[in-house]
Amino acid sequence: MIDAGPRSMADRGPIAILCGAGSLPFAVADAARQDGRRVVLIGLRGFADAGRISRYPHHWVALAQFGHLFRLLKRENCRELAFIGSLVRPTFSQLRLDLATLRLLPRIARLFRGGDSHILNGVIAIVEEQGVHVIGAHEIAPDILVPDGPLGRREPDGKDRSDIAYGLQFLRAIGPFDVGQGVVVADNRIVCVEAAEGTDHMLARLAGVRHSGDVRFAAGTGVLVKAPKPGQDRRIDLPSIGPKTIENARAAGLNGIAVVAGSAVIAEPKEVMEAADRAKLFVVGVGDEAPR
Amino acid sequence: MIDAGPRSMADRGPIAILCGAGSLPFAVADAARQDGRRVVLIGLRGFADAGRISRYPHHWVALAQFGHLFRLLKRENCRELAFIGSLVRPTFSQLRLDLATLRLLPRIARLFRGGDSHILNGVIAIVEEQGVHVIGAHEIAPDILVPDGPLGRREPDGKDRSDIAYGLQFLRAIGPFDVGQGVVVADNRIVCVEAAEGTDHMLARLAGVRHSGDVRFAAGTGVLVKAPKPGQDRRIDLPSIGPKTIENARAAGLNGIAVVAGSAVIAEPKEVMEAADRAKLFVVGVGDEAPR
Repeated sequence: MIDAGPRSMADRGPIAILCGAGSLPFAVADAARQDGRRVVLIGLRGFADAGRISRYPHHWVALAQFGHLFRLLKRENCRELAFIGSLVRPTFSQLRLDLATLRLLPRIARLFRGGDSHILNGVIAIVEEQGVHVIGAHEIAPDILVPDGPLGRREPDGKDRSDIAYGLQFLRAIGPFDVGQGVVVADNRIVCVEAAEGTDHMLARLAGVRHSGDVRFAAGTGVLVKAPKPGQDRRIDLPSIGPKTIENARAAGLNGIAVVAGSAVIAEPKEVMEAADRAKLFVVGVGDEAPR
Repeated sequence: MIDAGPRSMADRGPIAILCGAGSLPFAVADAARQDGRRVVLIGLRGFADAGRISRYPHHWVALAQFGHLFRLLKRENCRELAFIGSLVRPTFSQLRLDLATLRLLPRIARLFRGGDSHILNGVIAIVEEQGVHVIGAHEIAPDILVPDGPLGRREPDGKDRSDIAYGLQFLRAIGPFDVGQGVVVADNRIVCVEAAEGTDHMLARLAGVRHSGDVRFAAGTGVLVKAPKPGQDRRIDLPSIGPKTIENARAAGLNGIAVVAGSAVIAEPKEVMEAADRAKLFVVGVGDEAPR
């Protein structure tokens, strides 16, 4: 008998990518294809980019149409599913339910009493009970993980390093509360905390209150620090940065961006690096080494 | 010899009130006058309400003009000073210094590397070294402290009570970071965190992202929870609410407001109560009893 060696990626069958907003789903899809895997995109109606999704084999589902999703996965013979891209959390009453979802209703209602990780972990459990394995973007496309060290030409100085450590410490302290993954620190002072509104809105409002003079901190200070929630399932909802993050950080007058290396994703590393250099911002992957 | 009894308030000489923005300084001044004390208001230029301050004996100083402030206190024979009203924290380079401040410069520069309580505690120390006793608004006007229980007609229900406890727990967790004193919780989920921007801006942005659909939570849920920072010097910067807080909470679609009883101030309790009833919001003073 001839040893066939480890099973190639292609042997594992097609992979389904449930697509939220942004370009990350497509970066991951392209990486999977380069590994020789067939990819089926499943767009979340109202979130996924319809123009880009049309260039791949794809289907559409509405949020919470579990029955429809399970039938599609079965028909396409997908035993692996990744959730990629951003969503706005709906209210429970906004969900458009199908029959399978109706049966899960009491369980889903309970998920809505808590933070986002609480919902997402519950959804993973529901999907995996159907025999579908949920995998993370970084398992398909490890290259999208932010590496250790500076990404562009600029690097954080001592003052920035101190703010980064303080920000990581803060994010760890709020971890148990399943709240956002971002904070802005300037001169050892927490100036802005991300919660349900997301990083883009947090930075936009910071730009607003700096412009109006209602929040002030010295030029050359200010770091956006992003870290995954402690205990968060890393298969979903890792912090991500993109060219828009750079643009928003520049508009808020920050000095740079720090993310935990290996725990944050960048859909377009080259674009991010170029945008950071143009904006004279540092973007750095750091160890999660703040004192516990 | 005849025992003169405890010294009356009037015996303690005039009290100086260093006035920031808002109506709180005047509410406190009126309370002190009703106790028979002479009051000297010292307006912080750019913050205090010039129209209202002109109705009291008053002077003006710029932020960080310590020499000028100390001379005024001496001239007016004030041995007690209260800091009341809101400020926007300036950047260090925006300070307009006088001679006394120049001598304190290295010390003040160090104060700027940290949160607001860090600065305020440092300023208290500087003032007290001049033999001036810094007192809190609540020591002059205990009636402005929020009492235990509901303030208007509405009361929080069980779900609101659970959100209030969760919010207090969150605020306690971020206490060591000298960050803001407010958080919005809906259905056990932290939806908005106040940092340097203050409560009004936090609520305004929440109204914005709810309007755009970027943050969603069910109608009839959502509580603004305010608590003093743990270990904060209660003579300065206690959380405060006013008619504007009610208006902003209503615009953000919240169900109510909870503050720690005895640890938050209301300049205009009657107006706040009426505004809350009109807006169908509860306003409640609660014990700080969330599990530690």
